[in-house]
Amino acid sequence: MERPSLEHLETPAALVDLERVDTNLRRVDAYARQHGLRWRPHTKTHKVPELAALQLRAGASGVTVATPHEAEVMASIARDVFLAYSPVGAARLERLMRLPATVQLSVGLDSLEALEGLSAAAKKAGRTVGVLVELDLGMRRVGVQLPADAVALARAIREAEAVEYCGITFYPGHVRSPVKEQGSSLLELSTHLTGFLEALSGGGLLPQVVSGGSTPTLWRSHEVPGLTEIRPGINIFNDRNTAAVGACTWEECAYSVLATVVSTSVPGQAVIDAGSKALAKEEGFTPSGGYGALLERPDVVIRSISEEHGLLDLTGTEWRPRVGDRVRVVPNHVCASVNLHERLWAVRDGAVEGAWTVAGRGWGAP
Amino acid sequence: MERPSLEHLETPAALVDLERVDTNLRRVDAYARQHGLRWRPHTKTHKVPELAALQLRAGASGVTVATPHEAEVMASIARDVFLAYSPVGAARLERLMRLPATVQLSVGLDSLEALEGLSAAAKKAGRTVGVLVELDLGMRRVGVQLPADAVALARAIREAEAVEYCGITFYPGHVRSPVKEQGSSLLELSTHLTGFLEALSGGGLLPQVVSGGSTPTLWRSHEVPGLTEIRPGINIFNDRNTAAVGACTWEECAYSVLATVVSTSVPGQAVIDAGSKALAKEEGFTPSGGYGALLERPDVVIRSISEEHGLLDLTGTEWRPRVGDRVRVVPNHVCASVNLHERLWAVRDGAVEGAWTVAGRGWGAP
Repeated sequence: MERPSLEHLETPAALVDLERVDTNLRRVDAYARQHGLRWRPHTKTHKVPELAALQLRAGASGVTVATPHEAEVMASIARDVFLAYSPVGAARLERLMRLPATVQLSVGLDSLEALEGLSAAAKKAGRTVGVLVELDLGMRRVGVQLPADAVALARAIREAEAVEYCGITFYPGHVRSPVKEQGSSLLELSTHLTGFLEALSGGGLLPQVVSGGSTPTLWRSHEVPGLTEIRPGINIFNDRNTAAVGACTWEECAYSVLATVVSTSVPGQAVIDAGSKALAKEEGFTPSGGYGALLERPDVVIRSISEEHGLLDLTGTEWRPRVGDRVRVVPNHVCASVNLHERLWAVRDGAVEGAWTVAGRGWGAP
Repeated sequence: MERPSLEHLETPAALVDLERVDTNLRRVDAYARQHGLRWRPHTKTHKVPELAALQLRAGASGVTVATPHEAEVMASIARDVFLAYSPVGAARLERLMRLPATVQLSVGLDSLEALEGLSAAAKKAGRTVGVLVELDLGMRRVGVQLPADAVALARAIREAEAVEYCGITFYPGHVRSPVKEQGSSLLELSTHLTGFLEALSGGGLLPQVVSGGSTPTLWRSHEVPGLTEIRPGINIFNDRNTAAVGACTWEECAYSVLATVVSTSVPGQAVIDAGSKALAKEEGFTPSGGYGALLERPDVVIRSISEEHGLLDLTGTEWRPRVGDRVRVVPNHVCASVNLHERLWAVRDGAVEGAWTVAGRGWGAP
């Protein structure tokens, strides 16, 4: 493929700032080393094996994936793959079991039904799969609810064929603030986790791996008792939500969508060619609202969005773009935006250095 | 590709009920014939040339697209392609001008800047492109604001090289109700439109084509004065929003996402493997809220959603699904959901009849 110039790139186009990615990866690796934690980045954010390879070279100990297809794609560069998702259903299990035998696969699950299916599939495939008990530490999405349930499930894993009990996993998606707050705080989560750890330990099921964490809680992971591994996804790129909660600065946002102004006919706004099919319609939790903001003018917000239109709110700025001008938008939620693009353009010093295919999109060939 | 059975299809999977599609297409064609309107379906809903071909065979007079890449894809089956989007930017224009010479291309635009770019590109490419003046009839997204501006732009189109003035276009995305209502009603829109028509007519610029309409307003299009063409997109599939506003029945919903229950650990809910990356996170305007509902149990709503998880609210039902059970979800906004899938599975009488690639996704090869 010919390498287009940034100026000539057709919009909307997803851009990745390579220097910022390097900085973000060095920072998380330094943090993990300082606190004796392993980091296993969640690759659902980028779904690009080349970027996962960068993370492994930067010090990551393995990768996390959300789907069997992401596992397939990441198996090309990673030996140690953790599926942070209950593998339910014959077709999903078959896809997982077709992973190269060299891949050390582990999964998180929260039910006997999921365990039984996995054990049978692994036995049939002649492989051993690591299993982590998924805990609910307050998010109320998935995960076992009570310490006694975790003990029962861990015991069932010990007794099942073709699987190995490795420990526990959780995702604190409800804790959005990296600073101490009322309500769903990291302290509450830690108390909850301690209850699970004591019950498992008392039952002779001390978890070797205690895997958790998200990007918003990333820099406070060392406060979580017993944690051995963190799994941040977003922090490779960061986004407007992450900056809003204070887990990154605006200058650490490495991902943006290049867009063109296509209309200025309605007073007080300019319309760009990046809408919900390029940025994703994610309301986010920035006080100023909207669906994203301009990288170089973070006070200019995407006030509303439809499939191929983003409406820049110009009521709070003197700036008046013209039809044909180009801007870069930092979306609220980067994972959802990346998933809408076939490729990401790697940019360094304002020039396109290459492109990656977002190979892990979708759920794989039938 | 081997044809999988519906029972063995890996989830999440996008399903299209062929019989319902046939019914939906016959209904719109009969309506258009009855009222002497042409229908030019917006193919951004499905982005599948094979489905556009079905629409043309059912009586459509051409296709509508939102992006130059959709135009490329639809050019394989349609001779008459309308880009309902201002073609701004060199790369977009180049892609458009590379369409086969046999394609009769027209575009909508609302600025002199867009017109100048298009005229120059068309002249260079040696083709003539039809142009429709895009009007704002109250949505306040794009479109010229005043009748005098429409006259000026139409006159400029008449005078520009390599383009032809064809008429006017609008999208009434702000009129959501197919029944008469207060506020943004079809009546207000019609009054507004009449003002534009009178000014253009008075200026010797009577539009040959008056193209407008959406799915929510579809069945009242004949009430709009001077309308010659409708461009419904969603009505081929319909969705939860369309049913909510009364523009279709639940039984006319032809699209659903097949999903598997992966967790029931949190009381009062069941978690499925279709989240925002399969259904799209579109809040919609159904009074009961949520992001979708079960095709066979429309009272069971997807209460909240994250990337690979959808949370079914079971608080209002006795039904208790088990891990491994499969359900079909009708999303709020079908266009956004389709755009997340690589392929759509065509289903008839409960069996998979084939699959279509969603070829128009993204913005095309660089």
